[in-house]
Amino acid sequence: MTGWVAIAGLGPGNDALITPEVTETLAQATDIIGYIPYVARIAPRAGLNLHPTDNRVELDRALHALQLAAQGARVVVVSSGDPGVFAMASAVFEAVEAHPEYTDTDLRVLPGITAMLAAAAAAGAPLGHDFCAINLSDNLKPWEVIEHRLRMAARGDFAMAFYNPRSKSRPHGFEKTLKVLREECGPDRLITFARAVSKPDQKLVTVPLADATPEMADMQTVVIVGNSTTKFVGRYVYTPRSAS
Amino acid sequence: MTGWVAIAGLGPGNDALITPEVTETLAQATDIIGYIPYVARIAPRAGLNLHPTDNRVELDRALHALQLAAQGARVVVVSSGDPGVFAMASAVFEAVEAHPEYTDTDLRVLPGITAMLAAAAAAGAPLGHDFCAINLSDNLKPWEVIEHRLRMAARGDFAMAFYNPRSKSRPHGFEKTLKVLREECGPDRLITFARAVSKPDQKLVTVPLADATPEMADMQTVVIVGNSTTKFVGRYVYTPRSAS
Repeated sequence: MTGWVAIAGLGPGNDALITPEVTETLAQATDIIGYIPYVARIAPRAGLNLHPTDNRVELDRALHALQLAAQGARVVVVSSGDPGVFAMASAVFEAVEAHPEYTDTDLRVLPGITAMLAAAAAAGAPLGHDFCAINLSDNLKPWEVIEHRLRMAARGDFAMAFYNPRSKSRPHGFEKTLKVLREECGPDRLITFARAVSKPDQKLVTVPLADATPEMADMQTVVIVGNSTTKFVGRYVYTPRSAS
Repeated sequence: MTGWVAIAGLGPGNDALITPEVTETLAQATDIIGYIPYVARIAPRAGLNLHPTDNRVELDRALHALQLAAQGARVVVVSSGDPGVFAMASAVFEAVEAHPEYTDTDLRVLPGITAMLAAAAAAGAPLGHDFCAINLSDNLKPWEVIEHRLRMAARGDFAMAFYNPRSKSRPHGFEKTLKVLREECGPDRLITFARAVSKPDQKLVTVPLADATPEMADMQTVVIVGNSTTKFVGRYVYTPRSAS
């Protein structure tokens, strides 16, 4: 039996956003690897081994997947959203690079609905023109890099989507982000906080930057900042297709 | 009967990438509106009216959807990819803004797998760190805006995904884009051309910028440029999770 690894995106939370490609691949799997809450979304069945692990062990998890596949297992590494956007795909390739004996592993990345696009859809179309996706976590990059990217994105008049805006271990990062955004974009720019997108407790709030506070975001929140043309129409927020 | 409009993403081409949410909504529709090749993806059935229209009539198409819904129709406006990324969602909100009598229409945006994320998955994980999405079409914005955004994205060391890189009516735009990228990113930066992603004739090519030519892209191509850390591992292209 030939093993393989599929790195699959489960979307933002609602099972109606899981692609048939991912569902079919999960049905063929012998092993599911991932962060505890994502593995918990997979229905147990005979012959399926579930390997839930804690956060921040991405490389161990990736190596485990490669090892199991080398033994013939059909492994699905589950991510929320899209595995290629601030999720497990890059971690698996980092593990392959560090362990070249796994270079010939049968590896596939299966895309999913990433949080910012589900959030944008729920809000209207705030990412309807050029935009950037930025991970605000400073676990893997210094604040200076984040600040520079925020300023470049603002000066390019990109809309922006932020992942991991705030955590208990980084209470002040998002406050600094809001300060940089107000300097670059002014007080009237619209900012949307989308929490628990596509889940029963989904909550969306859009305010001008002047009224945004750090407490509006947590680790379950995706934040979207409009560009200079982003506006309300009725209860929807959208960015026109033309540049200002 | 109360009408509604759903703006739905059909993904990049493979039906296995259409979400169950979209499939279920299509099953409830009375009318399908969209660009000819996207409407052609919907199976005809009794009671379903198909309204295929030509390209570049987005606002007419959007208004037609709102008018039908006001008459009680259940309308799905189909986009390829994700409707919120350089597709029909913003056009529908523009139509609502221009025709305020439709402000209270029951409108929903249903996310889909957008081309850049399917392309990234097929290539490996080139968008695994902060990235920008840029529409290179100058139909709705001047070249100067595109060039400025390219430079800001490059100076922020974002990876980049380009939609609509090249068309018969704009043969020189992508040549100019490659020139700007070489100036900003140097000759060694990796660039991936992903054509007909997820379709039977999918083709992926990754080269250093020095070897990229305008002819490598057409309107069916999504182009992904790595950041300064993007590299090959085996046959995959990926961007590590850490900043350089």
